[in-house]
Amino acid sequence: MATLRLALDAMGGDNGPSVVIEALQRAHRQFADVQFIVVGQDAVLQPLLTSAGLDNSPRITLHHAEQVVEMTDKPGYSLRAKPQSSMRIALDLVADKQADACISAGNTGALMTNAYFALKTLPGVLRPALMSAIPNRQGGHAFLLDLGANPVCDSDTLFQFGVMGSVAAQHVLKLEQPRVALLNMGSEDIKGNDVVKAAAQLLQQSPHVNYIGFIEGDDLFADRADVIVCDGFVGNIALKSCEGLAELLMHNMRQSISSHWTSRLFVKLFQRQLQKSWDWLKPDHYNGASLIGLRGVVIKSHGDANSDAFFSAIGQAITAATQGLPNLIKDKVETVLLEQQ
Amino acid sequence: MATLRLALDAMGGDNGPSVVIEALQRAHRQFADVQFIVVGQDAVLQPLLTSAGLDNSPRITLHHAEQVVEMTDKPGYSLRAKPQSSMRIALDLVADKQADACISAGNTGALMTNAYFALKTLPGVLRPALMSAIPNRQGGHAFLLDLGANPVCDSDTLFQFGVMGSVAAQHVLKLEQPRVALLNMGSEDIKGNDVVKAAAQLLQQSPHVNYIGFIEGDDLFADRADVIVCDGFVGNIALKSCEGLAELLMHNMRQSISSHWTSRLFVKLFQRQLQKSWDWLKPDHYNGASLIGLRGVVIKSHGDANSDAFFSAIGQAITAATQGLPNLIKDKVETVLLEQQ
Repeated sequence: MATLRLALDAMGGDNGPSVVIEALQRAHRQFADVQFIVVGQDAVLQPLLTSAGLDNSPRITLHHAEQVVEMTDKPGYSLRAKPQSSMRIALDLVADKQADACISAGNTGALMTNAYFALKTLPGVLRPALMSAIPNRQGGHAFLLDLGANPVCDSDTLFQFGVMGSVAAQHVLKLEQPRVALLNMGSEDIKGNDVVKAAAQLLQQSPHVNYIGFIEGDDLFADRADVIVCDGFVGNIALKSCEGLAELLMHNMRQSISSHWTSRLFVKLFQRQLQKSWDWLKPDHYNGASLIGLRGVVIKSHGDANSDAFFSAIGQAITAATQGLPNLIKDKVETVLLEQQ
Repeated sequence: MATLRLALDAMGGDNGPSVVIEALQRAHRQFADVQFIVVGQDAVLQPLLTSAGLDNSPRITLHHAEQVVEMTDKPGYSLRAKPQSSMRIALDLVADKQADACISAGNTGALMTNAYFALKTLPGVLRPALMSAIPNRQGGHAFLLDLGANPVCDSDTLFQFGVMGSVAAQHVLKLEQPRVALLNMGSEDIKGNDVVKAAAQLLQQSPHVNYIGFIEGDDLFADRADVIVCDGFVGNIALKSCEGLAELLMHNMRQSISSHWTSRLFVKLFQRQLQKSWDWLKPDHYNGASLIGLRGVVIKSHGDANSDAFFSAIGQAITAATQGLPNLIKDKVETVLLEQQ
């Protein structure tokens, strides 16, 4: 296949362009056959590229974008008032087939709105979904979606999330028959609200999805399912609550560190292990989230991500673009829709 | 005031009656002016009371109940088919003013349905809510509700949960002006679904609630609010997801323990500290949940609770009954409703 071309929104994220350029430096070294289009303000990015020794690479192009979407911008405002933002231009490059994927650490709401506008959903897809890989106790991962693109979902939309997540798990997690579950407040059929119950029926009836039933929050990390489906309100709160608990634990650990010499010793001994756990505790910080169901690959890196996280998001974008994930999803959704008619 | 009388459903919970009797033994010693009505099967409970040395106490009455609600019983079935269950009779004792509070570790759905039927909601209260205290990083607590009594809530119901939670926080957590927040997928006004947005307006307009706005999942344990309101679907999944993360961490810790001698040493040194963190990690295991909005005090201890947790639930029941929490809620809800007319 032709060389892969990635558009990086270099102005997004709480930590500014330097994180993006740092990640680019590593990705440029590691992925020798990938072209990078760095989108953002020339005056800011040129010096960073120069000091990173990247200004003369034939695989890096700087694409100027005058405007910047701020983390505080409302999605609608970013769409109307900032057509020349680095985020929007990076997405437009994908829409115009000048890039194969876009990666941004910018404002999530703005990215979803701009991506939806610039790329459109795949034929037959009702809504795009934000999906991320969460770790499980067997050392593997499960895809959780939606994480906040859709505060309210009907049962058809949840059903489609199951179909799309299943395609992604087949090709990205390399699973033949990914186990698809709905996140619910109980595992029995009678539990939950009408929307999840109706979605369960649709998934149950589909020959294209290996639906295993409802799972509860305490099974999120238990390797019970490979694809876990919920609406964006629930998914956002489930993941962020875990972040909150992780922060509480780290706070408690710091308190105990300052009070006991034995724990100071322990921390010395286990610093690497602790860091690893910490990364696990905040899975969405470590892994980028994919915006799936669109006519192109869009990966969202966490707003306060460091360069490791942005680098990991670049890797995800390369996997999804190499697989041609949007086309695989399109084919499956078409098959499912034809059968339902 | 007259002696407090507590009805204990002695047959509920995964761990059976022995956990309840163990907790009773401690509560009987600690709360010297409380009467305990132990409800369940004579043949099972009498020997346990005898071996615990409690069979001759004038403050303990054994109240026979033929039937037992199983953890797998559906709520409607438990209501129709088991009118002589220990759970139902314990609730009836509260309804008939023969007891001031009921404590059960039984099937949550069945307890909610039976309590709703036996006790009814307070005048003006739309729905009862399941509420629990979660820890925060300042060493304090916040009340989180609803935890699963109501999979779907309208904005009026969420508003009432804010009012009821605020009254509980005033009297139980001893706060003059508890900070009330709505759990949402973003902190800006435009975030979330129509129900939380409408509930926010109602709370904002009420002079009876110190409403501080939306908070996100990562602020659950951050001491941002004293009362955190959501529907039962979201609350259940938020808390259970935290449980799931806690289990993942414990699993990882056990793995690391078996592989490094240094961590085995660490665990020896920190066993108490670890246990404390573990209790924190599963707040609903440690703290009982109150079913509020009913014409009586009902405390739910976790199904797989140990005797410490059941003892803690007894303490909560005593606090709520001594305060007369149902009447305090009734007065406040009446005031609010009159003002809305």
